[in-house]
Amino acid sequence: MKKRNLYLNNTPVDEARERYLRAMEPYLRVEYETVPVTESLHRVTKQAVYAKYCSPMFNAAAMDGIAVVAAHTLGAGEQTPVDLRPGEDFIVVDTGDPVRAPYDAVIMAEDILEREDGTVRIVAPAAPWQHVRPIGEDIVAGEMLLPGRHKIRPIDIGVLLSGGILELEVVKRPRVAIFPTGTEIIEPTEDPKPGDIIESNSRMFQGMVTESGGVPTRFPVIPDDYELLKEKVAKAAGEFDMVIVNAGSSAGTEDYTVHVLRELGEVFIHGVAVKPGKPVILARIGRVPVIGLPGYPVSAYIGFENFVAPLLHTLAGEVSQTGLRADAVVTRRMVSSLKHREYVRVKVGQVDGKLVASPLARGAGAAMSLVRADGFCVIEQNSEGVEAGETVPVELYRTMEEIQNTVVVIGSHDLILDVLADLMPSRYPGVYLSSTHVGSMGGLMALGRGEAHVAPTHLLDEETGEYNVSTIRRLFREPVALVKGVDRIQGILVKKGNPLGIRGIEDLKRCRYVNRQRGAGTRVLLDYKLKQAGISPEEIDGYDREAATHMAVAALVGSDGADAGMGIESAARAMDLDFLPVGPEEYDFAIPARFLDLPHVQKFLGSLRSEQFQTRVEALGGYRCRNTGKIVMVE
Amino acid sequence: MKKRNLYLNNTPVDEARERYLRAMEPYLRVEYETVPVTESLHRVTKQAVYAKYCSPMFNAAAMDGIAVVAAHTLGAGEQTPVDLRPGEDFIVVDTGDPVRAPYDAVIMAEDILEREDGTVRIVAPAAPWQHVRPIGEDIVAGEMLLPGRHKIRPIDIGVLLSGGILELEVVKRPRVAIFPTGTEIIEPTEDPKPGDIIESNSRMFQGMVTESGGVPTRFPVIPDDYELLKEKVAKAAGEFDMVIVNAGSSAGTEDYTVHVLRELGEVFIHGVAVKPGKPVILARIGRVPVIGLPGYPVSAYIGFENFVAPLLHTLAGEVSQTGLRADAVVTRRMVSSLKHREYVRVKVGQVDGKLVASPLARGAGAAMSLVRADGFCVIEQNSEGVEAGETVPVELYRTMEEIQNTVVVIGSHDLILDVLADLMPSRYPGVYLSSTHVGSMGGLMALGRGEAHVAPTHLLDEETGEYNVSTIRRLFREPVALVKGVDRIQGILVKKGNPLGIRGIEDLKRCRYVNRQRGAGTRVLLDYKLKQAGISPEEIDGYDREAATHMAVAALVGSDGADAGMGIESAARAMDLDFLPVGPEEYDFAIPARFLDLPHVQKFLGSLRSEQFQTRVEALGGYRCRNTGKIVMVE
Repeated sequence: MKKRNLYLNNTPVDEARERYLRAMEPYLRVEYETVPVTESLHRVTKQAVYAKYCSPMFNAAAMDGIAVVAAHTLGAGEQTPVDLRPGEDFIVVDTGDPVRAPYDAVIMAEDILEREDGTVRIVAPAAPWQHVRPIGEDIVAGEMLLPGRHKIRPIDIGVLLSGGILELEVVKRPRVAIFPTGTEIIEPTEDPKPGDIIESNSRMFQGMVTESGGVPTRFPVIPDDYELLKEKVAKAAGEFDMVIVNAGSSAGTEDYTVHVLRELGEVFIHGVAVKPGKPVILARIGRVPVIGLPGYPVSAYIGFENFVAPLLHTLAGEVSQTGLRADAVVTRRMVSSLKHREYVRVKVGQVDGKLVASPLARGAGAAMSLVRADGFCVIEQNSEGVEAGETVPVELYRTMEEIQNTVVVIGSHDLILDVLADLMPSRYPGVYLSSTHVGSMGGLMALGRGEAHVAPTHLLDEETGEYNVSTIRRLFREPVALVKGVDRIQGILVKKGNPLGIRGIEDLKRCRYVNRQRGAGTRVLLDYKLKQAGISPEEIDGYDREAATHMAVAALVGSDGADAGMGIESAARAMDLDFLPVGPEEYDFAIPARFLDLPHVQKFLGSLRSEQFQTRVEALGGYRCRNTGKIVMVE
Repeated sequence: MKKRNLYLNNTPVDEARERYLRAMEPYLRVEYETVPVTESLHRVTKQAVYAKYCSPMFNAAAMDGIAVVAAHTLGAGEQTPVDLRPGEDFIVVDTGDPVRAPYDAVIMAEDILEREDGTVRIVAPAAPWQHVRPIGEDIVAGEMLLPGRHKIRPIDIGVLLSGGILELEVVKRPRVAIFPTGTEIIEPTEDPKPGDIIESNSRMFQGMVTESGGVPTRFPVIPDDYELLKEKVAKAAGEFDMVIVNAGSSAGTEDYTVHVLRELGEVFIHGVAVKPGKPVILARIGRVPVIGLPGYPVSAYIGFENFVAPLLHTLAGEVSQTGLRADAVVTRRMVSSLKHREYVRVKVGQVDGKLVASPLARGAGAAMSLVRADGFCVIEQNSEGVEAGETVPVELYRTMEEIQNTVVVIGSHDLILDVLADLMPSRYPGVYLSSTHVGSMGGLMALGRGEAHVAPTHLLDEETGEYNVSTIRRLFREPVALVKGVDRIQGILVKKGNPLGIRGIEDLKRCRYVNRQRGAGTRVLLDYKLKQAGISPEEIDGYDREAATHMAVAALVGSDGADAGMGIESAARAMDLDFLPVGPEEYDFAIPARFLDLPHVQKFLGSLRSEQFQTRVEALGGYRCRNTGKIVMVE
């Protein structure tokens, strides 16, 4: 068996970062270059910049009118008008024109009477220096225009040029080499074979390096070859300001990176107490920091934020910006281990005036959880987790304004939520939909706790045969609007061609099934159908195997992971599976009546009722928009 | 006399913007282009993007270890170990490796015992699908990856590539033509002659267009020539998505722009009720919006934000982000007119847990007030102003974190404040100094109201001859630390060579003087010296003419605007003036004792006491650092 590299440390995050920054401090060198001011946007000044010229450069008219000698206007009044001769007693000036001796005041055009002979009559005296902008009013030569380590904004460029500055010294952008590694890794342009993994982290790092003020250079994928990796990394350490090696940092059998770095330089940290993101390598080759980041996208992202970004900010002369922080109420229990600090991605919304945070998928591989997240909730290393209803600090990716204009949807999953999420911001710019998938019952519970605006639900009352109404009546004391959504067909998803010849519920006993999570309407429907057929859950192989969405079930049935699952027709179509209809059901939206008048909830309803929505939904297949958008009040 | 274009309207800002946006709506067209995903950072998606592949693309090991058939491990226990044969009962897998039939579970490397014969012993059974990431766990083929009108972040690029997307349609960046105009306007690279104005607005606009998602093209300055302007603007309207004409929008004699635009197209608005920034032209040539902005930098900036940015955001497919808003206590009365909405630039700080906003210079020409500002305070059109102590909403340019780490300095002005403002963030990254200049007495009053951390002061007690201590004792009930600053020489500033032969206070009667504002220590000193010499203020020509800083006084004396003023030696040196010493004085910092332990106030003291500070200050000339940083408690 191949040698494994099991002996990672478990250094706490902050300690690891501080130890690394301290160890690198003697080696890090901020470098500078001179650039034209006109090309300096977003660069960082080396040192304070002082004005060469005054602005205005001369005493200047602050109004359109005439420049006069104030002393010559003394005594002017309604009864004692004074007439001024052009070229002698006055000259015409526009705003910004110089006012030179002997002139020392400006009279506004509105306050003069032009006469036919070219003279001008005034009926009030001018005070000395009235309507004159004195030289240097805005900028005085020698004055400091910008401090050192200042990031240039558009207005700074204007002021620098007005102050006579054409070039300035700025911090050189650090150049960062990025090496994706791994034999199983392929370029996105290649056709994936079974077992291949598409390389995408390095492209994410490119963007993150750019946003942190650096210049990324991404190298082609290096296969698992010790000597090749060593050669490439050694060369890059001689040419770049920083090197990132992606993957090859865990304890897998082909993880050479840490050995390469030990041979070429010094490894300070290998393994950090953070989840996800443990296998991080913090090292140095010569003066150059070399960081090994884990391969899972979420781990890679968190490793970058924790270790690459602070170093890059130092090299780029920028102050590291921690994001906007706010307190939010957690909508679901989050358990964590004492062994590490955990970063939980959350959706954040504002309901009833309070911020609420719903945890998203926690796997390190769940890159989509980063895309969907509105922020991170940090569970510290010494905490066992957070209970629902507790308040936690959240680091936000989105502005408070966006969050306040977001309709929070928690409940059952359906593809039409994606359609709505796409439709809303294009119909109503600045308004968003955020959806978390916890099943119908979970959504109604969240609604009851005031943590969501909308709960999509499809719960069958076995006794009445009615959907949703009776459950809502049972759960809520306040009036709830049941907004009718779509009729959709539930059924059994099987592989294309139905190789096992599955015909109905009975046949689920002889295949590998994949179920939905507890509280999902689809699971309730299965339970109902099993009961009708007199089948016990134990008879179904895979009854306890849970997937969180219709599409996840479809993907498993499409692979060799499962033979059948229950779900909606659109998911079967999307994954090219066969579909055995079990029956139609009503997928609706529960909204507490007091939310109906909120502007963004109104826009949610507007999107739902739009023709565009119904056209797109019917194109997905398996839906009918009979009563879409109609409201049934449940009181 | 030349024809003037006096007839501007005075349309309220919001009405002007809405009318213009409505008028342009039929003409504005968002365009699209296809770009590689790897080059899509910060671009805006045209429509929703759906995954082509699942991720993972196969059932994959979630741990390093061995893949097994779960059914073959049943019954394994401490007493009943099961031995597995390589290649038959198990294969070795690393994280991410595919788990293919017949294998359906992974056992972690830590949980197996490797034996010499190559077999592996386990003492616990594996549950089916344990440590296996199911196909599509992260991304399911057909799933929506990103909605339409979404701005691409680094993580989005990663997910798009993982989902098999290589190219995507994005909103084309609108191309914006920028025309600086005016015969008196010169390029920054030219040597300014008297009356010339350096063109800088167009360079500021370039940055602002870039930040709003557009691509700027800046044309050379067009002199005041009706036909030339017409030709250039007409051509640009045929080639670009938007045209900005800078200056030429007020009622001055050479302001052709509005006539050109009326001839070429349609002018919707000329003149907006906003201060600064009234002379705005909102027009159209064909499908293309053409906007005339005023020449003063602050007016130009506000006009851009109010009228260009929203149009650009529409064309660029982005949601316009209004900045962070917060409530702040106003430190000084701000009067405004009912006729217009006024934008007042403010410094913002946090003192005693509350945000405080200090208004900056309000002239439209004061570009430096934009550089120094931390935000805008808006006084609505129907308001006469705001009293000190009232709470107003402020639109912030800076993050709350920066503001919380800012030492708020309000009081007397000295060049050493610039040195400190430059020094602090480079010694202590992330810590800033914000200073507002209201004179010594104004600063102490602000300190008393809890609106500043530090008040620089140089107030002479005429009776004791002592500086600062007695005034502070009189004003404060709480203990105040008087941190000694510098000894500096005050004197009379006169033109180089002293052409009027000024020798002392007595001679101020026969020259044009420029004074400092009420409450300034330098004015107190002048009053004291005048009293000693038996001279009444009325005898001094220019006693009522006020400048706000030493440097502003020096600039006026250096021009033909004034013959003499009082100020500090370093200002005379900076402007190459002659200096007649009047006497030394003590320029100190008053800090309420309860602020002394605040981390950023400690860093202020650290900067003040640093060798670097004292070296730089002594190089300015006219200063002595005798007791710099020592603390005298005034109780």
